[in-house]
Amino acid sequence: MHSMTYQAAVIGASGYAGGEVVRLLDEHPDFAVAYLGAHSQAGSTLSSVHPHLAGGERSFGSNSPASIPEVDVAFLGLPHGSSSAVGLELAEKGVKVVDLGSDFRMDTADRYQLAYGVAHAQPDALDDWVYGLPELFRDRIAGADLVASPGCYPTASILAASPLVAGGLIDPTAITINAVSGVSGAGRSLREDLLYGAVDEGVRAYAVTTHRHRPEIEMGIELASGGTAQVTFTPHLVPMQRGILATVTAPVADGTTEQDLKDEMRRVYGVEPFVDVVDHPPQTRWVVGSNRVMIAVYLDERTRTAVVLSAIDNLVKGAAGQAVQAANLMFGLDETAGLPLSGWMP
Amino acid sequence: MHSMTYQAAVIGASGYAGGEVVRLLDEHPDFAVAYLGAHSQAGSTLSSVHPHLAGGERSFGSNSPASIPEVDVAFLGLPHGSSSAVGLELAEKGVKVVDLGSDFRMDTADRYQLAYGVAHAQPDALDDWVYGLPELFRDRIAGADLVASPGCYPTASILAASPLVAGGLIDPTAITINAVSGVSGAGRSLREDLLYGAVDEGVRAYAVTTHRHRPEIEMGIELASGGTAQVTFTPHLVPMQRGILATVTAPVADGTTEQDLKDEMRRVYGVEPFVDVVDHPPQTRWVVGSNRVMIAVYLDERTRTAVVLSAIDNLVKGAAGQAVQAANLMFGLDETAGLPLSGWMP
Amino acid sequence: MHSMTYQAAVIGASGYAGGEVVRLLDEHPDFAVAYLGAHSQAGSTLSSVHPHLAGGERSFGSNSPASIPEVDVAFLGLPHGSSSAVGLELAEKGVKVVDLGSDFRMDTADRYQLAYGVAHAQPDALDDWVYGLPELFRDRIAGADLVASPGCYPTASILAASPLVAGGLIDPTAITINAVSGVSGAGRSLREDLLYGAVDEGVRAYAVTTHRHRPEIEMGIELASGGTAQVTFTPHLVPMQRGILATVTAPVADGTTEQDLKDEMRRVYGVEPFVDVVDHPPQTRWVVGSNRVMIAVYLDERTRTAVVLSAIDNLVKGAAGQAVQAANLMFGLDETAGLPLSGWMP
Amino acid sequence: MHSMTYQAAVIGASGYAGGEVVRLLDEHPDFAVAYLGAHSQAGSTLSSVHPHLAGGERSFGSNSPASIPEVDVAFLGLPHGSSSAVGLELAEKGVKVVDLGSDFRMDTADRYQLAYGVAHAQPDALDDWVYGLPELFRDRIAGADLVASPGCYPTASILAASPLVAGGLIDPTAITINAVSGVSGAGRSLREDLLYGAVDEGVRAYAVTTHRHRPEIEMGIELASGGTAQVTFTPHLVPMQRGILATVTAPVADGTTEQDLKDEMRRVYGVEPFVDVVDHPPQTRWVVGSNRVMIAVYLDERTRTAVVLSAIDNLVKGAAGQAVQAANLMFGLDETAGLPLSGWMP
Repeated sequence: MHSMTYQAAVIGASGYAGGEVVRLLDEHPDFAVAYLGAHSQAGSTLSSVHPHLAGGERSFGSNSPASIPEVDVAFLGLPHGSSSAVGLELAEKGVKVVDLGSDFRMDTADRYQLAYGVAHAQPDALDDWVYGLPELFRDRIAGADLVASPGCYPTASILAASPLVAGGLIDPTAITINAVSGVSGAGRSLREDLLYGAVDEGVRAYAVTTHRHRPEIEMGIELASGGTAQVTFTPHLVPMQRGILATVTAPVADGTTEQDLKDEMRRVYGVEPFVDVVDHPPQTRWVVGSNRVMIAVYLDERTRTAVVLSAIDNLVKGAAGQAVQAANLMFGLDETAGLPLSGWMP
Repeated sequence: MHSMTYQAAVIGASGYAGGEVVRLLDEHPDFAVAYLGAHSQAGSTLSSVHPHLAGGERSFGSNSPASIPEVDVAFLGLPHGSSSAVGLELAEKGVKVVDLGSDFRMDTADRYQLAYGVAHAQPDALDDWVYGLPELFRDRIAGADLVASPGCYPTASILAASPLVAGGLIDPTAITINAVSGVSGAGRSLREDLLYGAVDEGVRAYAVTTHRHRPEIEMGIELASGGTAQVTFTPHLVPMQRGILATVTAPVADGTTEQDLKDEMRRVYGVEPFVDVVDHPPQTRWVVGSNRVMIAVYLDERTRTAVVLSAIDNLVKGAAGQAVQAANLMFGLDETAGLPLSGWMP
Repeated sequence: MHSMTYQAAVIGASGYAGGEVVRLLDEHPDFAVAYLGAHSQAGSTLSSVHPHLAGGERSFGSNSPASIPEVDVAFLGLPHGSSSAVGLELAEKGVKVVDLGSDFRMDTADRYQLAYGVAHAQPDALDDWVYGLPELFRDRIAGADLVASPGCYPTASILAASPLVAGGLIDPTAITINAVSGVSGAGRSLREDLLYGAVDEGVRAYAVTTHRHRPEIEMGIELASGGTAQVTFTPHLVPMQRGILATVTAPVADGTTEQDLKDEMRRVYGVEPFVDVVDHPPQTRWVVGSNRVMIAVYLDERTRTAVVLSAIDNLVKGAAGQAVQAANLMFGLDETAGLPLSGWMP
Repeated sequence: MHSMTYQAAVIGASGYAGGEVVRLLDEHPDFAVAYLGAHSQAGSTLSSVHPHLAGGERSFGSNSPASIPEVDVAFLGLPHGSSSAVGLELAEKGVKVVDLGSDFRMDTADRYQLAYGVAHAQPDALDDWVYGLPELFRDRIAGADLVASPGCYPTASILAASPLVAGGLIDPTAITINAVSGVSGAGRSLREDLLYGAVDEGVRAYAVTTHRHRPEIEMGIELASGGTAQVTFTPHLVPMQRGILATVTAPVADGTTEQDLKDEMRRVYGVEPFVDVVDHPPQTRWVVGSNRVMIAVYLDERTRTAVVLSAIDNLVKGAAGQAVQAANLMFGLDETAGLPLSGWMP
């Protein structure tokens, strides 16, 4: 007997992450896309907004909860600050929600304020949402109705750092993370600094010392390890569409060997379907298009510093794929259902 | 009752096209990859050659027919001139073969010599192979055991030109085709002119007046239309990985209107699952990752010239996807089985 | 004795072409940049608009003629339709003007209307402007006070086609031109289709049958050859910053050989400082950064079609460099003064 | 009276760095390229190797010192290990030498062994060579006949870190440097991992904990500050041709403010012609094509960590331009002669 098909709404489906959710769900054996929501594109056809997607004759409705038909699950791909009202209204209706945005990711209102500079509008609701990083918080996600799917940089960074912190192998208060990201991480905004002429053939750091993903990274490491984390985080934009490579450095505990670092990483991720611990520097090209994470760890003996490299596709494992992975858990499905293990290259 | 699974060998699986066949078959409901053949990479693991593919622990055997286990079908992704011996030996064993190479594409030994400058080694065998362009030669493919899958430029070009030639709407003896291709079309060769530093930020024409795909394009148009075709073909290399855009121009017959051109194109391709006739210039990004073809047609009234634009992913519809599409027909499966209709973007 | 230095105003200096004029003039031995004009960026510093340029502390004034100090020459890099008022007002003051825009390029008001779809506002003024393609119209430019600098596609196309038309070697009424351009040709506009995510890894045709450069190309060929030209022109956008490659095809006259084509091209351009006639396909990378044009010509014997390939840097020879080249002529300077002959690569 | 022109030989002129020296010297008012040396390309024309350079009819001689005519200065752009014999032989003839390679960069034979894993062949010669970073060692270079021009990563890294180390503002024993580089940094080698298909759309770290530039970076900081430096260095390759961005992080001394960091950086570099200290993240695009360095410094208050960003063109300031800058000093010329202050963009 084939399992039943769950009906899904994708709200904010006109953006890159929302479009990627549609692409994945269209191939998913257990979910069907029942509704597409958009803001300014409401009324447009899918093909006019995402010409690469099949079924282009489907059209967008509005993002307003009142417009959304009865569904089993809603995926929200809305701009920062826009999810909370929609998310809570859907939650009240009993719809399971996976929010790809940042409104409900933080564990406390203080942390939210630290990251976003304003007070959270519904601080009491934060406890109802589970941070949706399956490799670290699988059981909580499986029992949740409301999941806040992690940010792209946090996904790569937390998966790289937290095993070594939890294992007591690196100093959690002196972590340096440099990450490079493809441009899709900035979304589909019409900004002059995202024009082809401003991005191609150049690299830049941005949001130096102030990126809002830093508190989320610290939270993730703390939730996974039980301690306190302090991270210096510098994100960079490089001329490619997809992919994040996080380079995590931190002083190692006395006596720690490179083999200790590798052993711990393999112990933690050995059976994970989407995490590959490898013995060579991972390349983003090798995971782009897939839900995989590729991680390698080194010890710089002269400086006694661990170097962890972690590569993901920011739109799949860093956004849409991870959201589907969480939904698979929430509905008791095979965690890998509908999620690509192979990427595309060249 | 679920259909049976057919066992497939992928010979020459270390190249770009061969790797893409593996990627597609791994997701295919009816085929299983039973064997991976390679030349210099025999003995290597899949992950060392195609690190983006799942199941990386699989390893390559040799390309030699003697090494290939009993299978239902073999896909050949071998360099020009290398397929014929392997192909014929497999054919004798009763294995169905889809050859992604060029050895058996031509209808006559003369045409082969015109394209490749040497006599064909087994001219008598040419009749046993069917030219595997499903949209135009579906029935012949469905009844074939041996299929020569078209080249990438010919796929885009023939699909663009042949309906208008067959419909008597353009002059088949004055066709100009300019095509631009991503670099994966050149395969994985270690050539200085394919280094990043030689390709990035530049564009070039190559094989001007001499490209071997020109006779194949003429053949395809002739087979589809029954007449004689003469094509001036200029291929260009542009800095991207995948995608071909063919721009086909030809004088139109007296009295022909733009609407006539559009109507004929829609009449021919209206029900094709992989061909979209659109009313705006197609972009390669919109089809990359999918098996789709996107075609638009215009009439330049001042010069009485038709302009047809045709976009494909050279590694999917132009190679691996089309080969799988043919195999689907050869085994009586749903022609679209296992073939992506959505591409990826950004 | 050193020659005197001429004072130059660059109006519309905040765009790509205007910025490139500033870059070239800053290195020019005989011109000094005395004024920078901008529209919305008036009041800004140069470094905030063109951070790659030296002397970033300079600031922009307005584009209004009343704000422009007394200068010897003005270069106009204004949007279509914006040059004519400024240009005529400067002309009345006795300032020599090189207009990089399109307002005064056409020889007749009819041709202007054909290209731009509206009547020219000052049709009587058209005769006062000289079309600034030095290789073909050197003497007229040297005697001119007002020069309309050619468009980027026309520069590459006219230089490729006109010698063969003038020499009677190709049919001027059946010319097909396919051109590919880097994205800087579209200027610095904030358009969604020019975002990195929309341009990278894809190729598209645009303005099919309707591009406004088509009439300009026909005009240039006609002015250079004395006959009538008809061109089917299809421009394409490819993912690179700079560079245009024009591929020109046309039927050859009876009896014409490839050597005839090459001989004529070399006869016409043999002593030109900026034109290289080569025997292999030119690459845009080889001319980017320089004021050079690289041209190769082939004969397809089977179809009796000439194929001419022409590569330029659209911002240098296709815009700013050509404007400076014209100014050199207008002021009686060495035509090559201040113009790079070497490009940059990689 | 015009100054005399010095005759220069460029040995190893067929590589990227050597070609860039030729490009710069061809525009230099005081040097003339008298000889081009190459290894496998000896006998070829310049245009066949560097088609972007003017004067393409010049041809390469051999790299052998016996073939080099009498010149005033030689620039060596040879592979690691190949400079020392040539360099010493030229030195004996009284030719001033600027070595762009790594053979003579280290201050001690021990440091050389640490970096390169083998003993130096002529350890006694090391003292005769001056490390050619003009901003930090100007006087020594001005008095030198033999200059070892710094590596690309060291140039960006040392200029970023050494002022803060010398000023006692950061801990020199806990420096983390993550750098991203364009692909031209790897030279023109025919390696599969440098093919377009392997580089485009992906990012990777490489030589993790083992890159040979790490000891050179530590040396430079130590020479400039007088203390001991320990650096964890992770280089990354990104899909662009030129440019390096170094992100330097280190704990700050107690009481240090962000303003202290900025003040010190501006105090050290305030009058440098090629160094811009800016208040926003520098982009490599803004310096590519020029000999400029753009530096910004931040303090992460929460982690008490300085973040210094430093952008250069690896082939100009990181190689050819810096070599010419040193030569300018060695010959008593204006330090900026022949060196571009403006870059190119887009």
